[in-house]
Amino acid sequence: MSAFNKNSARLRDEERARLIWLLTTDKAIISTLLGKLTLAEQYDVGTLADDIAEVGALVAHLPPPDLADTLEALPSEERHALWRLVQNEKRGNVLLEASENVWDDLIDEMSDRELLDALQYLDIDEQIYLVQHLPRNLTGRLLATLPAEERARVRQVLHYEKNRVGAIMEFEVITVRPDVTLEVVQRYLRRLGRMPENTDKLFVTDRNKVLVGELTLTCILLNDVQRKVSEVMEDDPLTFSPEDIAENAARTFERDNLVSAAVVDPAGKLMGRLTIDEIVDVVYEETDTDLRRMGGLSAEEDVFAPVTKAVKTRWAWLAINLCTAFIASRVIDGFEHTISQLVALASLMPIVAGIGGNTGNQTITMIVRALALQNIQPGNLTFLILREMGVALVNGLVWGGIMGGITWWLYDDMALGGVMTLAMMLNLLMAALMGVIIPMTMVKLGRDPAVGSSVMITAITDTGGFFIFLGLATLFLM
Amino acid sequence: MSAFNKNSARLRDEERARLIWLLTTDKAIISTLLGKLTLAEQYDVGTLADDIAEVGALVAHLPPPDLADTLEALPSEERHALWRLVQNEKRGNVLLEASENVWDDLIDEMSDRELLDALQYLDIDEQIYLVQHLPRNLTGRLLATLPAEERARVRQVLHYEKNRVGAIMEFEVITVRPDVTLEVVQRYLRRLGRMPENTDKLFVTDRNKVLVGELTLTCILLNDVQRKVSEVMEDDPLTFSPEDIAENAARTFERDNLVSAAVVDPAGKLMGRLTIDEIVDVVYEETDTDLRRMGGLSAEEDVFAPVTKAVKTRWAWLAINLCTAFIASRVIDGFEHTISQLVALASLMPIVAGIGGNTGNQTITMIVRALALQNIQPGNLTFLILREMGVALVNGLVWGGIMGGITWWLYDDMALGGVMTLAMMLNLLMAALMGVIIPMTMVKLGRDPAVGSSVMITAITDTGGFFIFLGLATLFLM
Repeated sequence: MSAFNKNSARLRDEERARLIWLLTTDKAIISTLLGKLTLAEQYDVGTLADDIAEVGALVAHLPPPDLADTLEALPSEERHALWRLVQNEKRGNVLLEASENVWDDLIDEMSDRELLDALQYLDIDEQIYLVQHLPRNLTGRLLATLPAEERARVRQVLHYEKNRVGAIMEFEVITVRPDVTLEVVQRYLRRLGRMPENTDKLFVTDRNKVLVGELTLTCILLNDVQRKVSEVMEDDPLTFSPEDIAENAARTFERDNLVSAAVVDPAGKLMGRLTIDEIVDVVYEETDTDLRRMGGLSAEEDVFAPVTKAVKTRWAWLAINLCTAFIASRVIDGFEHTISQLVALASLMPIVAGIGGNTGNQTITMIVRALALQNIQPGNLTFLILREMGVALVNGLVWGGIMGGITWWLYDDMALGGVMTLAMMLNLLMAALMGVIIPMTMVKLGRDPAVGSSVMITAITDTGGFFIFLGLATLFLM
Repeated sequence: MSAFNKNSARLRDEERARLIWLLTTDKAIISTLLGKLTLAEQYDVGTLADDIAEVGALVAHLPPPDLADTLEALPSEERHALWRLVQNEKRGNVLLEASENVWDDLIDEMSDRELLDALQYLDIDEQIYLVQHLPRNLTGRLLATLPAEERARVRQVLHYEKNRVGAIMEFEVITVRPDVTLEVVQRYLRRLGRMPENTDKLFVTDRNKVLVGELTLTCILLNDVQRKVSEVMEDDPLTFSPEDIAENAARTFERDNLVSAAVVDPAGKLMGRLTIDEIVDVVYEETDTDLRRMGGLSAEEDVFAPVTKAVKTRWAWLAINLCTAFIASRVIDGFEHTISQLVALASLMPIVAGIGGNTGNQTITMIVRALALQNIQPGNLTFLILREMGVALVNGLVWGGIMGGITWWLYDDMALGGVMTLAMMLNLLMAALMGVIIPMTMVKLGRDPAVGSSVMITAITDTGGFFIFLGLATLFLM
């Protein structure tokens, strides 16, 4: 690392890794920090004191977002130890950047009063966000600290659902009138002395607070100072409604490369603005949640949660999985007589079920993603089903044929090979069909297509695969 | 929709849906647009002409990003028809916003010359991006059109790998000197007349092009015009190296809420900048790819690719799945004698294998995600393994116990119930252990932990589950 790059991104990655390493490799550091043992009670005091000093220096140097990430990478006890070292001024910002998973641990030892003190370093939008989401109800106490006028606006934000634009919008915006010159705007800005974070544009409103245009900072700087706002502003800006779904807004931000955008009510009145940093968080959260849900994980589980919490968040999926496996097992049991006459069926049946599950999951993953990207519309559903069935048919013929041949050769039984081929083909077709129908039906029912799709398709391809294979065997081989 | 929100995000979503609906529900529109049939040859000419006029109006009205999304939501023939309607000036931008999956279709009928013509409406960074990624080699032809000085810079970008910051950075930047006043900067900007998209800051460099600070537009507007750049600039800005991994840079952007950041060489010289719009694309692509890979899908497959392409991109995973299923089937075959004596084993064994697969996949999903978030460091690996084993032990005792009880009751065989409980517990422990070890080992070997992890864990829990269960049955029940 050259001396010039004193603040390179890589250097900070290294500092974070070093901090985690220090906190997780030597239990003595943690017990000292938590006050369980004094420095003098421990051996190798020299190294330990050095390490603790280094921990302190790193905590003081790293900015809040990096501290938040570090906290997420630590088991509970180490988290507590680190959190104690974070100065009060930084704590609000660290909370803001940390994910919900670690909040419990962090605010564990803090009183309501201390928490509100830590929040006071944040701006009002950020305070509201935390107060709404922290696992402790502070809304009332926060509202009490605010002037009456702000309280009304806060109440307004609080009434939108979590996944709506209204809940993530900020109401700190700078507005200007259309009939002033850029020089006046510049003087006004200098008098204000600061702009909210991620301000790339001002909003132009009329006397009734109705949005009439947007004025980018670029525009202010590129145009002659004598020109009027109305001459240089964008007069048909893209706007959001507070009722819009946050994930859709994120797609629009990506599509149009926006940094901020106005949120207006149905009458066109400016209510606030959305900014790219909220949006990036929405994107990470959305894709993260999809991934976890497809894998049957709860969104709340964090990788360092204690065993008890992990058991609690996962038990439902395991129970569902056990139920479906049990049903599949009852199907096999129904063919006990067939299996006892031809034990080879017992070893071949997992192949039929497995390949169906694989294909079904491929199809579902693709459909869930396409739904999230709004790529699927009623008009192209038939095409999709036909395509997936076509793919399944080709794969069924090819791989079913190969497995049929191998079965014939292994057991010297042509009929068994034929049953194998036919069963694989039918199960693949069913997997493809259900792989499209399940997520589409869940959308129709107004549910999230990612939740449980994978479990359902596996249940169907297992149960169906066993039934098809053993049923065909009973028909043709007995 | 109120008359005020003439450009609301929701309205554009509706227009896109309408366009897709028009193009996919009436084949006559497509055959007319592709020139296969003339208008006069078709029945109900009035409606058809109206529909075609509406398609034309929508294509003319929708901005390039929306057109790109619409193209992605169409089967191949419809894509061609729509692409023909897009004006040449918009085509470059549409290509830029479209994903790799649809490029083949789009540039199918265009000559190299036409393609380069369409690209000329883009700025040089965008041209390079497309020329590098389009499935046709145009690099040489593009380089030939550039002045010598630019050619050297382009060559520099071309030499970085696709997943590096160097490959996605832009080199259109505005630089200023530290010793001038803000008034001079403002005059300079007005003379320039334009700024590159997503410019939220200028870069301050010395005589040798070494980055000495950053000057935000906000800072220019908030400070007195008589002040010097060096007095108001941020003098310790966050920088990236062109060799940094793009996904890590994306995390830093999210962490620090950046809109743009400087890319510098090891000597501190300014090379270019990274912007949030590239980063948002990286985030979507990264999480998308993870999701697809875990599901055993290739990143290149798009939901409307023809059957042949889908078969081609999926065959490898199916083959691997068949191989592992075949191995599992051979394990069962080895216990043929045991099964023929106790057919109940055949119906119970999928339960043991299934629950192991479920737990293993939960663990892997969590670890892959934590690795992507850089949450796992050598120091906390032991903690993780112990935690997952603990979760597995608890689940094994609870659910294994329940299933053992049910088995005992169903088959009136206490020993069989005991074997069931023990087998489930052992398979869950193995699943948890391998669920941590597999992705961690892949990272150690320098491979992507998301690729194939799910297939490997399922193979292990299936084969292992069958072996453990049937092996225990042979030991204790025969």
